[in-house]
Amino acid sequence: MKQSQLFTKTRKEAPKDEVSKNAQLLIKAGFVDKEMAGVYSFLPLGLLVLKKIENIIREEMNRAGGQEVLMTVLQDKATWEKTGRWSDDVVDNWFKTKLKSGAELGLGFTHEEVIAKIMKNFVSSYKDLPFYAYQIQTKFRNEQRAKSGLMRCREFLMKDLYSFSKNKEEHEEFYEKMKDVYMKVFDRLGMGEKTYLTISSGGSFSKYSYEFQTLSEAGEDEVYIVDEEKKIAINKDDFNDEILADFSLNLKESELKKVKSIEVGDIYSLGHRFSEAFNLTYKNKEGKEEFVYMGSYGMSPTRLMGAVVELNSDENGIIWPENIAPFTVHLIVLNSKNETANENIIKTAEKIYKDFQEKEIDVFYDDREKSSFGEKLKDADLIGIPIRILITEKTLKEDSVEVKKRNESESKMVKVADVGSVV
Amino acid sequence: MKQSQLFTKTRKEAPKDEVSKNAQLLIKAGFVDKEMAGVYSFLPLGLLVLKKIENIIREEMNRAGGQEVLMTVLQDKATWEKTGRWSDDVVDNWFKTKLKSGAELGLGFTHEEVIAKIMKNFVSSYKDLPFYAYQIQTKFRNEQRAKSGLMRCREFLMKDLYSFSKNKEEHEEFYEKMKDVYMKVFDRLGMGEKTYLTISSGGSFSKYSYEFQTLSEAGEDEVYIVDEEKKIAINKDDFNDEILADFSLNLKESELKKVKSIEVGDIYSLGHRFSEAFNLTYKNKEGKEEFVYMGSYGMSPTRLMGAVVELNSDENGIIWPENIAPFTVHLIVLNSKNETANENIIKTAEKIYKDFQEKEIDVFYDDREKSSFGEKLKDADLIGIPIRILITEKTLKEDSVEVKKRNESESKMVKVADVGSVV
Repeated sequence: MKQSQLFTKTRKEAPKDEVSKNAQLLIKAGFVDKEMAGVYSFLPLGLLVLKKIENIIREEMNRAGGQEVLMTVLQDKATWEKTGRWSDDVVDNWFKTKLKSGAELGLGFTHEEVIAKIMKNFVSSYKDLPFYAYQIQTKFRNEQRAKSGLMRCREFLMKDLYSFSKNKEEHEEFYEKMKDVYMKVFDRLGMGEKTYLTISSGGSFSKYSYEFQTLSEAGEDEVYIVDEEKKIAINKDDFNDEILADFSLNLKESELKKVKSIEVGDIYSLGHRFSEAFNLTYKNKEGKEEFVYMGSYGMSPTRLMGAVVELNSDENGIIWPENIAPFTVHLIVLNSKNETANENIIKTAEKIYKDFQEKEIDVFYDDREKSSFGEKLKDADLIGIPIRILITEKTLKEDSVEVKKRNESESKMVKVADVGSVV
Repeated sequence: MKQSQLFTKTRKEAPKDEVSKNAQLLIKAGFVDKEMAGVYSFLPLGLLVLKKIENIIREEMNRAGGQEVLMTVLQDKATWEKTGRWSDDVVDNWFKTKLKSGAELGLGFTHEEVIAKIMKNFVSSYKDLPFYAYQIQTKFRNEQRAKSGLMRCREFLMKDLYSFSKNKEEHEEFYEKMKDVYMKVFDRLGMGEKTYLTISSGGSFSKYSYEFQTLSEAGEDEVYIVDEEKKIAINKDDFNDEILADFSLNLKESELKKVKSIEVGDIYSLGHRFSEAFNLTYKNKEGKEEFVYMGSYGMSPTRLMGAVVELNSDENGIIWPENIAPFTVHLIVLNSKNETANENIIKTAEKIYKDFQEKEIDVFYDDREKSSFGEKLKDADLIGIPIRILITEKTLKEDSVEVKKRNESESKMVKVADVGSVV
């Protein structure tokens, strides 16, 4: 894409009430726009990143056997009363609204109830199980405070997968597998090294569950590191003697490192809680009715985008990991006042632009004629595309372009003929 | 995909309160699930269709120069008060909700206000114009009644594009172009022949606007056909002498054919209405501030899915147009009790399945062992995949498969070696 055609521009300031680094950078670089606290619109560059994150997640969910669906935002009160989760006393972050008839509706913050109800239509025999359904969908949580930018939103994208198994044993096999699937996603997002499988309370569903916590000063959580090599931690809030005993951990709190972290995913064993509420049963091999054993597996693409920015930036801007960068290459020209030189600069840039596009390399071409060189370089650093290629009168005197990676400080000269080798 | 692995099954009945043909068929075939009137979840087959529709729209919007964004559902009261569209007396189909602080929010039913406000950050000079931004996003309308299945929903997907031009002349050039872009989309969805560019009132935005109306008995609208060849109509509600005079049409109401129709798109000239409200201005070449001239262009992928089903079905089920069918080929085996024959059937089917997948032909393989032949054929008709390939002991005795198109009644035998030619 040509930068002159993109309708967004970098901005000098983020809104004054924006305190998080991720949202400040994303707003200044033109990736998102803040509608209100915890509610962000995605502009063209931001949507490119978000779709790349979504696609990585989608690929891994499909590979794990997931079938994609799309459930609804609007929620029927009757459905949620079946599990006792309609009441604001039980779930304190509902957004509620009303039909013209006066009937109350909720805006979905999760979908266990809905999917259990849907599956009543499709599950009857043990032969129908196991299976896995997931969606990537907009969720709503009426947060009292929203101060961590894209990491704690009132409106956000969630990937939620639900597993339907015959029994605990079959469930646990998939649950174990999902630990690896999740780590694979975090690896592909460039945050695997810092992400810990974290033992935590199972809330109202089961005794324990697992979170995935990525170490970062920007996190709202804290974890105790149990095993740095195997990347195991315990959520500080749930740390106690019982948890140590249950997981056979011979550890003392005082000896453990406590680190701030971002919760980037969670996986729950739901047991029969929802299948009982909706009478979701199947006939086993002996013809006896049994409840389906469920699990749920959450991960938010928008929160992950915020987390990636928290982990990958410097004082000049964002440093996107290559897998999810809006573009792979930022091709920048410095126009010359010498007409012949300028023609040569543009001809060279257009050729590289075309060649890269033909090779399906995502290239962002800064063809803006009126911007100063300083402005272009500043914008490039803020936007954070992994590879920067500069073309100027000076570089072309050596038949070269200047190549610099966003995450390195040194640049190098590369012959124009060899420019394909830098990607 | 193997049918034995799909978690949905066809259903004998749609919910009793479902009166529309499109929703009845889509529910029975397992494409959607009804959460409540006007609110549907998309199951795997339904989501495949929806994504194909979305992608056709996305391709055409990108080709027209559109830049994709994703705006928010949650809407700030203050934004909508600027245009007087917050009040329920002005807009009667708002869903409203509240933050914990008590502050009122709306659920977006359209996004003119939001995008005008966003563009304040990016438009300053005539050099920034024109440009076009669009999204494919979930919208909410608190309909008093929702009885046309996917065609009038309380929660639905909308593609809404907004154009930003320097002046009326520049706007009209794009507005004219969008008429063709819209017709291209309807052509690709297989409904171009029945879709009429329809003159209608411009509501509160301008004197006139254009709708795209597809002739169908299931429609909630009615149009007068003005020109069958050029596919021009006038919305019945807006038909009067003034409209005839303004469009220089020498016609009499009594001589015109009146036909029921589905509104499948609309395009509006917004003029300065929103740019004035948000002070969205640019400096022209003379350095003078002028208001940006806006337009908006709507089209709902979910409504289009409903409309396509209304237009393409018979007493046995849906007949998907090839471009948006969940799969191109439905490969069906009839298992044999003769073990050798059965092995041959399965071996042949697996080979065709693999070959088609390698050629990137979307194939749905009915490998279910326990289903009767009658059940399989009934399911196939209901689901409505364009090309059905049957493999039985009998067809293989002739080294052949039986090929039948869903929209034809005759089948033909094709040699196994030639099966690649049927797609």
